Amino acid sequence: MKSTASASSITATRALSTDPFPSSQKIYVTGTRPDIRVPMREVQLSPTTHALTGTVEQNIAVGIYDCSGPYTDPNVAIDVQKGLPSLRHSWLDERADTEYLIEKSSLYSQERARDINSQFLRMHTAHQPRKAKTGRNVTQMHYARQGIITPEMEFVAIRENMGREQWQAQNATLQQQHAGQSFGANIPKIITPEFVRDEIARGRAIIPANINHPELEPMIIGRNFLVKVNANIGNSALHSSIEEEVEKMVWSTRWGGDTIMDLSTGKNIHETREWIIRNCPVPVGTVPIYQALEKVGGVAEDLTWALFRDTLVEQAEQGVDYFTIHAGLRLPFIPLTAKRLTGIVSRGGSIMAKWCLAHHQESFLYTHFAEICEIMQAYDVSFSLGDGLRPGSIADANDEAQFAELRTLGELTKIAWQHDVQTMIEGPGHVPMHMIQENMTEQLKHCDEAPFYTLGPLTTDIAPGYDHITSGIGAAMIGWYGCAMLCYVTPKEHLGLPDRDDVKTGIITYKIAAHAADLAKGHPGAQVRDNALSKARFEFRWQDQFNLGLDPETAQEFHDETLPKDAAKTAHFCSMCGPKFCSMKISQEIRDMANDAEKPTGISTQTQTEEVIHQGMQEMADAFKKTGGEIYQ
Amino acid sequence: MKSTASASSITATRALSTDPFPSSQKIYVTGTRPDIRVPMREVQLSPTTHALTGTVEQNIAVGIYDCSGPYTDPNVAIDVQKGLPSLRHSWLDERADTEYLIEKSSLYSQERARDINSQFLRMHTAHQPRKAKTGRNVTQMHYARQGIITPEMEFVAIRENMGREQWQAQNATLQQQHAGQSFGANIPKIITPEFVRDEIARGRAIIPANINHPELEPMIIGRNFLVKVNANIGNSALHSSIEEEVEKMVWSTRWGGDTIMDLSTGKNIHETREWIIRNCPVPVGTVPIYQALEKVGGVAEDLTWALFRDTLVEQAEQGVDYFTIHAGLRLPFIPLTAKRLTGIVSRGGSIMAKWCLAHHQESFLYTHFAEICEIMQAYDVSFSLGDGLRPGSIADANDEAQFAELRTLGELTKIAWQHDVQTMIEGPGHVPMHMIQENMTEQLKHCDEAPFYTLGPLTTDIAPGYDHITSGIGAAMIGWYGCAMLCYVTPKEHLGLPDRDDVKTGIITYKIAAHAADLAKGHPGAQVRDNALSKARFEFRWQDQFNLGLDPETAQEFHDETLPKDAAKTAHFCSMCGPKFCSMKISQEIRDMANDAEKPTGISTQTQTEEVIHQGMQEMADAFKKTGGEIYQ
Repeated sequence: MKSTASASSITATRALSTDPFPSSQKIYVTGTRPDIRVPMREVQLSPTTHALTGTVEQNIAVGIYDCSGPYTDPNVAIDVQKGLPSLRHSWLDERADTEYLIEKSSLYSQERARDINSQFLRMHTAHQPRKAKTGRNVTQMHYARQGIITPEMEFVAIRENMGREQWQAQNATLQQQHAGQSFGANIPKIITPEFVRDEIARGRAIIPANINHPELEPMIIGRNFLVKVNANIGNSALHSSIEEEVEKMVWSTRWGGDTIMDLSTGKNIHETREWIIRNCPVPVGTVPIYQALEKVGGVAEDLTWALFRDTLVEQAEQGVDYFTIHAGLRLPFIPLTAKRLTGIVSRGGSIMAKWCLAHHQESFLYTHFAEICEIMQAYDVSFSLGDGLRPGSIADANDEAQFAELRTLGELTKIAWQHDVQTMIEGPGHVPMHMIQENMTEQLKHCDEAPFYTLGPLTTDIAPGYDHITSGIGAAMIGWYGCAMLCYVTPKEHLGLPDRDDVKTGIITYKIAAHAADLAKGHPGAQVRDNALSKARFEFRWQDQFNLGLDPETAQEFHDETLPKDAAKTAHFCSMCGPKFCSMKISQEIRDMANDAEKPTGISTQTQTEEVIHQGMQEMADAFKKTGGEIYQ
Repeated sequence: MKSTASASSITATRALSTDPFPSSQKIYVTGTRPDIRVPMREVQLSPTTHALTGTVEQNIAVGIYDCSGPYTDPNVAIDVQKGLPSLRHSWLDERADTEYLIEKSSLYSQERARDINSQFLRMHTAHQPRKAKTGRNVTQMHYARQGIITPEMEFVAIRENMGREQWQAQNATLQQQHAGQSFGANIPKIITPEFVRDEIARGRAIIPANINHPELEPMIIGRNFLVKVNANIGNSALHSSIEEEVEKMVWSTRWGGDTIMDLSTGKNIHETREWIIRNCPVPVGTVPIYQALEKVGGVAEDLTWALFRDTLVEQAEQGVDYFTIHAGLRLPFIPLTAKRLTGIVSRGGSIMAKWCLAHHQESFLYTHFAEICEIMQAYDVSFSLGDGLRPGSIADANDEAQFAELRTLGELTKIAWQHDVQTMIEGPGHVPMHMIQENMTEQLKHCDEAPFYTLGPLTTDIAPGYDHITSGIGAAMIGWYGCAMLCYVTPKEHLGLPDRDDVKTGIITYKIAAHAADLAKGHPGAQVRDNALSKARFEFRWQDQFNLGLDPETAQEFHDETLPKDAAKTAHFCSMCGPKFCSMKISQEIRDMANDAEKPTGISTQTQTEEVIHQGMQEMADAFKKTGGEIYQ
């Protein structure tokens, strides 16, 4: 955007997406204290009418995990100039281990505050940063290890259960679930705050929640919780607009983005980030080396520890919840990439490799790692240890460069944990299907079950324009194997910057992958949504089918293309097969006949004899003839 | 379409998609006789220019498996009124075991031929049907078991190799390939005609090639060959147009559909099929029970064996290459579906279930199976044994109904093989990831390695509008486990009939799944395309990257949205990161520095000491300083 644009234009140019979802209402589940109010989306369903008997049966509303924050709550007035309400304000105050800073600590922040040219880019309400009091450690891991259950932990426990306790008594059909294959994950039937505390203390999960981002609704990342999805947004040197990035953030949380990463490398990075964080209900991650490189005019060799350190403090005091730090890319590993087909494809990784080569020195991220930990613990910024040497092609998958770095990330994880700093580990990349599991098992082994956070992986290189799909396949699989968070890939990957539609496609694809993984792991309660949707489908409750899906709008739009009339929403067939060929309709008829004949239930076990089955069949055949063979016509 | 439309309007209303692919040429590899001409697409690549040395290095063209038939050959004049040239005409004649029929054998075909109202729907050139001479068996399996290598077998052997013999000597970089995990598949480095013959004799692969479809270019389906993709097309009662269906067929083969199924259930099914087959370069499958049901006005109970038999003969003499026959859905299995969440979701399955219940009789498809085999062997129609009891929701996956039917399909496979009839087995459906492999292992066990052909499976139910993706995940996995052909699912699944765009999206998604499976199985030569594309990407050969992809048009379009100028096609960066943050660019610089310093190669082995590595690093650092640190600027 032009630097002369006034801040007020930021809201005017593009309306934020705040429409409520169809037949849905925002509800809040209250915890042990009234200010623990956990948001959820409840989808109201229409009743089932049994054709033969005319009986009407109510369908209980389904609770859905909701990342969209106050934007989909019609009772909350949104003002992007002020930012979201401060949800965690009192929780932070009560702990009494932080203090407000009179001035921002970072030199760059101070300089930027004095800069007249950026005045117009600022929000109306300024954020006053907090920091841990001297000698205090304010991470969720630190509290967990002291046995303290924070409100954040209780919040995520309630959130992870998705209101499913209320189901169990009420609808047995929807509760049925396959036993999963968890590969060592161990997800309890009901998530308790104590379980959350224990997982965080153990390092097996993180709650990314910077004390300077009190607006966020806490969420958890770990293999014993729901698989999460991250959406990358951010401007680039070739395309910049604060409005667009804020809307992209709102847009991605709307469709289910659990966290976002602001990967801006263009103009006004500092101000763009401020707008995003103040208005963001989910954790925000960044790659601080990007901004550091901007500060030295793009010349990697000119990067210094002092400048990088200042950037960390700058971003920590704005409220970034997790930092990608490529500290595992050590000098001796760089030659291991020489024979690769596609070298180093991580931006942060290549910047650091260039610095290391130019100075013939070990990376300052590695040599200053303990100091970085000290910054992280003063704001509760979580590590996302970057995989600077991830493979950029199928050919380079699982090579020594990649695994040498992974082992180093394991060492660094232990150092971070010594500082009680929450840590997750980033993973590839491009990996053929049969080599994906090795990534997970190596990560679990070397990083001692710290949450894994992967980009895809892409399972083939041959589909530019469709890399949400090439990678969605790999993402679903690695999620099943134990990956805690999946970084989305959009259709524009390798080709350009994602627009609004691409962001949505990326998110929906990754929600599919994450949910497929939850089902395969046997996450308790994951299947209830599938069951509810399939029941609606079988009962021709079209509107319920749309509304229970990940994207009600698109489902309805596709349906309406061939059967646009409202009447078709109650039709017991669709345009695919027409009424005569509708298997669901015929199948319903068969079932209704069977019920009518009061056929003995439990007939599906193999132990029953053929005689009993044949008797049942005879009754069904009789009943069929009685009804005239066509129930709906 | 209106029955008054003249046949000539069929070509006029919609142009067929015949544009050649960018920078590609249609080539033919000739076999041991001049009329074995195997089509392939060869993608021409631009040369690599090494920035530091200025050296120019040619990149060898990449051969791609090509399903698009004569439509992408600029030297072939297409006339849909006449149909495609008869490729296999002389091969059939030489075998001297078939004869032309003076009149079609099916009563329905005869009746239809006499029908004045359908005159206008006919092609200019009439197809004269062939049939096996009395007592002769004309299936590829029959020849294979007699030790005969047919031209069809040699054709597919050449086709499966994708011209990769020529690579091996010429480009070692592109030849590198990971060892796969094949789960018992055994794919030789070079496919020989004898290997093809052996696989067909064994029943482990089929070449669907009806003697009445001489226009097709033979292809093979089996676990020891490339994973294939089927596209479903066809009209419905609510939407019918011959033109659209012919174009959908051309369109799906263009994007890589290996076979198509004509699932028409609307008007003029017979004539629609004739147009499709005569113009179709790939095998055509159908579900004959659909047309049989139309003939009895949609009343399942009125179906008879005589009417069904006549339909089989009708379609066999038109040239259908494989029939889906739901003969495994036996009467005693129907009650096993009573407790299901979504009952019976296969159209053919529900029709037969209804028939069985109404008559309280075993399915006539099961009781007349041997007679069906006799028809199949007289035309070389292959079985696709239908899974009428496949699960229609995650909840119903892998239940007793499904597996009871699968075991019956295994019995029927053996009967088909006794008649030397080529056979594949259809599979599910909706299955969570962790339960997919069981489907494959059970199928291999009970059906003795007959090729498996699955619909997806969909790995979750919660994404109507995106079921190409929910199922693409499952398809890739089951392809890896050994599934031979994947039936595509389009974004419209569960919602409506796919249009042109949906067909393309479905095909591309499934080509991704099939290719990801080939990579994971370790299919020799599968990785060459990934390697070539990634090399192009790393070398900023944008146009080559687009052209080597599954969908060059979309890739280019996405790229051009943010960097539209022609100059950007040679830019050493893209809109994602801009020039300063381009990891590929930096990585190239690192590599060029390393080469410049004549760093010892082979440095990526772990056996080398840190000293050697550090020495190399020092050289690289010196070289870096020499070049001024910025090679491209």
